[in-house]
Amino acid sequence: MNKKNIKQEFLDFIHRLQDEICTALEVTDGKAKFKEEIWKREGGGGGITRIIENGNVFEKGGVNTSAVHGVLPENMQAYFKTEHKFFFACGISVVLHPFNPMVPTVHANYRYFELYDRAGNIVDCWFGGGADLTPSYVFLEDAVYFHRIHKMACDIYGKQFYPEFKKNCDNYFCNTHRNNEARGIGGIFFDYRKVNANQDAHDLLNFSKSCGNALLEAYLPIVEKNRAIPFTEKNKKWQGIRRGRYVEFNLIHDKGTLFGLRTNGRIESILMSLPPVANWIYDFEPNPNSPEAESLEYFKKGISIEQVEMSCKFPEVEKVL
Amino acid sequence: MNKKNIKQEFLDFIHRLQDEICTALEVTDGKAKFKEEIWKREGGGGGITRIIENGNVFEKGGVNTSAVHGVLPENMQAYFKTEHKFFFACGISVVLHPFNPMVPTVHANYRYFELYDRAGNIVDCWFGGGADLTPSYVFLEDAVYFHRIHKMACDIYGKQFYPEFKKNCDNYFCNTHRNNEARGIGGIFFDYRKVNANQDAHDLLNFSKSCGNALLEAYLPIVEKNRAIPFTEKNKKWQGIRRGRYVEFNLIHDKGTLFGLRTNGRIESILMSLPPVANWIYDFEPNPNSPEAESLEYFKKGISIEQVEMSCKFPEVEKVL
Repeated sequence: MNKKNIKQEFLDFIHRLQDEICTALEVTDGKAKFKEEIWKREGGGGGITRIIENGNVFEKGGVNTSAVHGVLPENMQAYFKTEHKFFFACGISVVLHPFNPMVPTVHANYRYFELYDRAGNIVDCWFGGGADLTPSYVFLEDAVYFHRIHKMACDIYGKQFYPEFKKNCDNYFCNTHRNNEARGIGGIFFDYRKVNANQDAHDLLNFSKSCGNALLEAYLPIVEKNRAIPFTEKNKKWQGIRRGRYVEFNLIHDKGTLFGLRTNGRIESILMSLPPVANWIYDFEPNPNSPEAESLEYFKKGISIEQVEMSCKFPEVEKVL
Repeated sequence: MNKKNIKQEFLDFIHRLQDEICTALEVTDGKAKFKEEIWKREGGGGGITRIIENGNVFEKGGVNTSAVHGVLPENMQAYFKTEHKFFFACGISVVLHPFNPMVPTVHANYRYFELYDRAGNIVDCWFGGGADLTPSYVFLEDAVYFHRIHKMACDIYGKQFYPEFKKNCDNYFCNTHRNNEARGIGGIFFDYRKVNANQDAHDLLNFSKSCGNALLEAYLPIVEKNRAIPFTEKNKKWQGIRRGRYVEFNLIHDKGTLFGLRTNGRIESILMSLPPVANWIYDFEPNPNSPEAESLEYFKKGISIEQVEMSCKFPEVEKVL
């Protein structure tokens, strides 16, 4: 495939996926509707921000696309280690914070980047993205299901991808300042997948599409399974503490947030990822053997590839989901 | 004064001030008591963390001291632009988040730093610190009162200090990613006040003590004045949004937080500054001419030195306070 077509095809894909995700989420929620805001970026490009708030299921969330271009700020040129400064970047970002603490928060982002020389020729281009699940209470079957669907989406293009991208994800969504506690139970994450002699543009595009298309299948069955589970004030408080960790990750470590802040992105679209409420209680430690303590164990040790690979052998999981 | 005595005298001061502040705050609160945690730092030193939670007045707060020493991490050596790596740092940090949205959050920090050569001689030493007030609802008379008390504490040592340190404070406690919106209404801030031929150690020590000692006088009358003002759920929500901005500042911009995270400080002591609850509502804009919108104006334009200097001429302010 011609590199020139990739940009347009990926743009078409993210806009179609944005529509598809919003429609499905509104049906799932049954009450709240997305509000759309179309914005322009000074310097080139803009985006479509769609926000859902105060629904039956979703307390707050966003499904955003953006396509920006122009001159890369110097600090981002240094970051990308490039002497080229003309860029194009587009992507879709999804973050959903459900009200019920038994329903996990989900995040996904798929993006495509181009760098140009002065004559406007593409000198470098790459894909990046991923999806991860952040439960307050970890249900192992949900975690392995979310991983399995993403593994299936990766496996189509090669068995080597899922293990690598799962590991990337564990390494990335990590609060290093909290003794390497994970933000959630992971998923997949890849970056700088460059179009070159070894990596065909068409394959990378289809790989990204495959992963993006897997999101609803990976997430909605978990929402349906857990949305009616009763919960207490105590559960809601634990969710608030976990959301505090989510805020810490996004503001201290997240490269996407950093990129947005450094390129003068639209602040409300960048920070739509933050939860509606977050709590910080001094030195909170869950009681031993409590569901909170059990969940914390998963954030410390992660989900193993063996658990994901074995999951299809559990018929009861298949049945529930 | 001999440099060697400064360290001990400042240490004595911060521990005495910690006791004094905690005692006064417990009296003011009338319900909650500080819980103390004494911790040791791997690599040298430690601290005394004192936390108050769920009081009549204070929803969450901390009055911490620490005195750490050892080998400076390489990234901090680069940050301080020094080839010396043996350091000592001590200080007191105060953050108080009252429950009533009409009572402002306050922050103060006073610290002393020494760098040593291999033989253990002091090669550089400096003082830093400051105090700032973060109301959700700005009462102008409170803001100028807080500034005025700090101005008086500075003026004893020279009329030039307050204007410079007030400006530093406005520049520092600024959410640059929010179109330069201030975190609150400022106060004073100074850093790298080095002991050298021009700056006598004794003067700097006394200056820091003067400012530190001013905190209770600058803050408690405002607490007493506003603690019984009735408030609504709507006021509490606005407080939650402003607290969100507080979290953004501390996690994205604050150098003290960064220093703590980079030197492997005790995470719960560093992040005691975060509020008990914070809210993020997508693209929230207060109604025109509402108290929220009026407060926002102060966060955009700041408190002027003229307002502070004129404040002693308002007898009605004197009376209220």
